[in-house]
Amino acid sequence: MAAESGKKWVLTVTAQTPTNIAVIKYWGKRDEDLILPINDSISVTLDPDHLCTTTSVAVSPAFTHDRMWLNGKEVSLSGGRYQNCLRELRSRASDVEDEEKGIKITKKDWEKLHVHVVSYNNFPTAAGLASSAAGLACLVFSLAKLMNVKEDHSKLSAIARQGSGSACRSLYGGFVKWIMGKEENGSDSIAVQLADEKHWDDLVIIIAVVSSRQKETSSTSGMRDTVETSMLIKHRAKEVVPKRIIQMEEAIKNRDFPAFARLTCADSNQFHAVCLDTLPPIFYMNDTSHRQEPFFNSSFINVIVPHFYLPIISCVEKWNRHEETPQVAYTFDAGPNAVLISHNRKAAALLLQRLLFYFPPQSDTDLNSYVIGDKTILKDAGIHEMKDIEALAPPPEIKDTNLTQRHKGDVSYFICTRPGRGPVVLTDESRSLINPETGLPK
Amino acid sequence: MAAESGKKWVLTVTAQTPTNIAVIKYWGKRDEDLILPINDSISVTLDPDHLCTTTSVAVSPAFTHDRMWLNGKEVSLSGGRYQNCLRELRSRASDVEDEEKGIKITKKDWEKLHVHVVSYNNFPTAAGLASSAAGLACLVFSLAKLMNVKEDHSKLSAIARQGSGSACRSLYGGFVKWIMGKEENGSDSIAVQLADEKHWDDLVIIIAVVSSRQKETSSTSGMRDTVETSMLIKHRAKEVVPKRIIQMEEAIKNRDFPAFARLTCADSNQFHAVCLDTLPPIFYMNDTSHRQEPFFNSSFINVIVPHFYLPIISCVEKWNRHEETPQVAYTFDAGPNAVLISHNRKAAALLLQRLLFYFPPQSDTDLNSYVIGDKTILKDAGIHEMKDIEALAPPPEIKDTNLTQRHKGDVSYFICTRPGRGPVVLTDESRSLINPETGLPK
Repeated sequence: MAAESGKKWVLTVTAQTPTNIAVIKYWGKRDEDLILPINDSISVTLDPDHLCTTTSVAVSPAFTHDRMWLNGKEVSLSGGRYQNCLRELRSRASDVEDEEKGIKITKKDWEKLHVHVVSYNNFPTAAGLASSAAGLACLVFSLAKLMNVKEDHSKLSAIARQGSGSACRSLYGGFVKWIMGKEENGSDSIAVQLADEKHWDDLVIIIAVVSSRQKETSSTSGMRDTVETSMLIKHRAKEVVPKRIIQMEEAIKNRDFPAFARLTCADSNQFHAVCLDTLPPIFYMNDTSHRQEPFFNSSFINVIVPHFYLPIISCVEKWNRHEETPQVAYTFDAGPNAVLISHNRKAAALLLQRLLFYFPPQSDTDLNSYVIGDKTILKDAGIHEMKDIEALAPPPEIKDTNLTQRHKGDVSYFICTRPGRGPVVLTDESRSLINPETGLPK
Repeated sequence: MAAESGKKWVLTVTAQTPTNIAVIKYWGKRDEDLILPINDSISVTLDPDHLCTTTSVAVSPAFTHDRMWLNGKEVSLSGGRYQNCLRELRSRASDVEDEEKGIKITKKDWEKLHVHVVSYNNFPTAAGLASSAAGLACLVFSLAKLMNVKEDHSKLSAIARQGSGSACRSLYGGFVKWIMGKEENGSDSIAVQLADEKHWDDLVIIIAVVSSRQKETSSTSGMRDTVETSMLIKHRAKEVVPKRIIQMEEAIKNRDFPAFARLTCADSNQFHAVCLDTLPPIFYMNDTSHRQEPFFNSSFINVIVPHFYLPIISCVEKWNRHEETPQVAYTFDAGPNAVLISHNRKAAALLLQRLLFYFPPQSDTDLNSYVIGDKTILKDAGIHEMKDIEALAPPPEIKDTNLTQRHKGDVSYFICTRPGRGPVVLTDESRSLINPETGLPK
C-alpha cells in the first residue's frame, strides 16, 4: 500500500463548495435511485464567501471504516446515496503518490482504504438553503481530489447528482444548467456551466431566512407524490420547462434582467402550483409562524408561510409594476426562505429598504447579525443603526399605508450575496477540518 | 297596454333560487362579454332552506325606469351584464293577461315597460357563497315568469350565464353540469341537470364561513390574468377537466363517494394551483386573518387563508387516510369559505365534531348562531351546549396532540345543509318583497 505502510500516515484534502438556487426548478424524478429528473433546471451559484460547505477528507491505513462528521456531529455514511457516491468515486480513483510523506496509494488500494469526511456549513443546515446540494457536491469534489479521480467537473456532477440531485449544479460557479439527459444509466444527466460568475456580476442576491430551527425534511417523498398524482406536472415538465430553459439561457446570455426576472418568478410560482396540485396537496412551511403536526407519519409535509411568502411576493410585484420594469425577481424553494435577485446594487439597496420596512427585526436584535454577508448593501441603503430601520418610510408604490402590515420578527436574518465561484481546493493547511495526526475532526 | 292602463296596477312575481358549489371548477373565459367558459364544470345545488336568494320582480306602467334593490339597498342595473339579461328576457317576453286585475300586456309592451327588482339573500352577500350565482339566477328566473318567457330552464340558464357565469348552474336542483358549448354566440353554453336532489340525498354539506365582512370582489380580472399568463390553465382546460367531467358524472350516477371525494378535492386544489401559476400569482384571502392592501389598484387580489384552509385540508386528509376511505370532500372557491361534503349523516356528525374541535367559537358566542342550518347534525354530534365543544377530545387520527393547534374565532359560523332543489315561484303573497300598491320594496 505504501513504502512505509507501517507508519500511521494520514493524507487529507480540504475543499470549499458553493450552494446554488434554482431559477428554473427541479421537481420530480424519473429514476429515484439514480436521481434522474423529469426536466432540465437552471441555477445561480451563490458566493461561497457567504454560503458554502467546507469539507476535509482524509485517508489512512489506520482507518477501520468510512466515517463522516457534519457540523460537529458524527453522521452515518451507510445511506444508499452516500454509498453510491463513494462507490462511483472509488471505481475511478487513480494512483496517488506523496513523496514528501512517503505515501504511495495504487488504484487498487482505494477499494480497501477507508476515508474520513468532516464537513461544515457556514449557514444553517436544512433551512432550505440547499445545504445538501453544497454538502454532497463538496463530498464528491474533495474525495475526487483525494483519490486523484481524473474526470472533469461534468462527470463529477453526475456522481454528485446521485447523492443529492441539485448537488450536481454546485460543481460550477456562475449560471449552471442541469441537463436531464436521456440515458437510462444517467450518464448524460450532468451539469454544465452556462456562464461564469463574472459574466453577470451586477446581480445582487438577498436571502431572507425565516427559521434556522427547521428539521431536515426530505423533498423526495413530496416529489414522488407530485409525479404520481399531479395532472399538471407532466405538462410542466414536457411542455413548459423546455421552452423556459431556452428563454432563460437567452436571458442569461444577454443579461436581460426583465426576461430573467419574469421567468424566475413564474417558475417559482409554477413549482408551488404543482405542489398544490398534488394529492395530498403540498404546502411549504415555516416553524416560526405556525407549528403543525405533519400531515401523515410517513412524510413531513410543509405548509406555506403566508406571513412571509405573500408580503414578499406582494412587495416585489407592486414595486416591479410601479417601476414598469422588473427591479427584482423572487424565488422560493422547498423551504422557508425567500431568495431575491436584484438587477444591480442600486436596486438591491432599494430592495433592502423595503425588506427592512416590512420585516423589521425584534427590538433586541443586533443590526450586525440581522443583515449578514455583503454589508455594503446595507450602507448603500442608508441603514447604519437600528433607528434607521425604525425611520424607514413606506415604499412610494404603497397607496394605502393604513393597510400596510409590518411583520416584526418574522425573518431571522438577511444574507446579502451575489453569484459566486465553483468549488476550490483550500491548500492552506490551517483551513483543514481534520487533525493530520489523528485523522479525526479538529 | 292594458284595458285600464290609466289605473296604476302593479304585477309581481316572487321566486326563490338556490346557490351552488362547483365540484369541478369553472375558471377562465373564452369570451368575456358572453361569459363563455374554457371548460365544462359541475356543481351541487345547495338546499335553499339554508342558502338562497329570494327575488320579487314587478312591472307597472307607473315605473319610469328599471330599478333594483339588493339586501335593502338600491343598486344600479346599468351594468352590461344586467343589461344583457334584461335585453335577452325582453326579447323573449310573451303576452301576459291577468283578468282579475284587468291587466293585459302584449309582447310588444315589454319593450317599453320598466321593472322593479327586489332581492334578498338569506346568507352573507359576497362571502364567497356564490351570492351572485343565486342572485342572477333568481333575477332571470323571476323576470322570465313575470314576462311569460316560454323558454325552458336550459335556455334560461344561457341568459343567467350572461349575468354571472356560475348563475346558470343555479337553474336546477341536485347535480348540474354547465356545458361550455362550442358556438361563438354562446347558444349551446347551457346548464343541464345530471341528477336531481333526491338522487343522492345521503350527502351532508357543511360550510365553514370565515368572514361575512368581505367586500364584493370580482373574479373576472383574476380569471383573465390566469387565462393570459398561466402556462398550466390550457392543459387543465383541454386535457384534465374533460376526463374529470366524465369521471365525476360517473361518480354521481353511481353515488360513488370515494371517486366523488377524490375528484372534488383534486379539482379544488388544481383550481388554486392555476391561480398560483398566474402572473402576478393569485391567492385567496380572508379579511379576518390578515388585512392586506390589494396588489394593484386595478384589481383586488385575494390572499390564502392559511389559518383556515390548511387546518381544514389537513384535518380532512388525515381523517380520510385514517379511515382508509374518504369520509368527506373539501372544496374552496374564490372566497374565504370551505365547503365540506360528507358521505352521510354519520360522517357529517364526526366531521362537525372535528371542525368544532379545531375551530371552537369565541367564548361569548351563542351555539345557536355558531352552527346554523340543519341543526340535527349538531345533535347527532352530541353537541348540545357550549361546554360540549370545550369537552371535545382530539380526533383519534391525531398522533401528536401536543402539536395540534385550535383556531378559536377563525370561523364565524358553520352552515349544515344538503343538496337541494332548483328555483321555485313563491305564490304566497306574504313572501313578496314588493309592496303591491307602490311597487317599491316592502
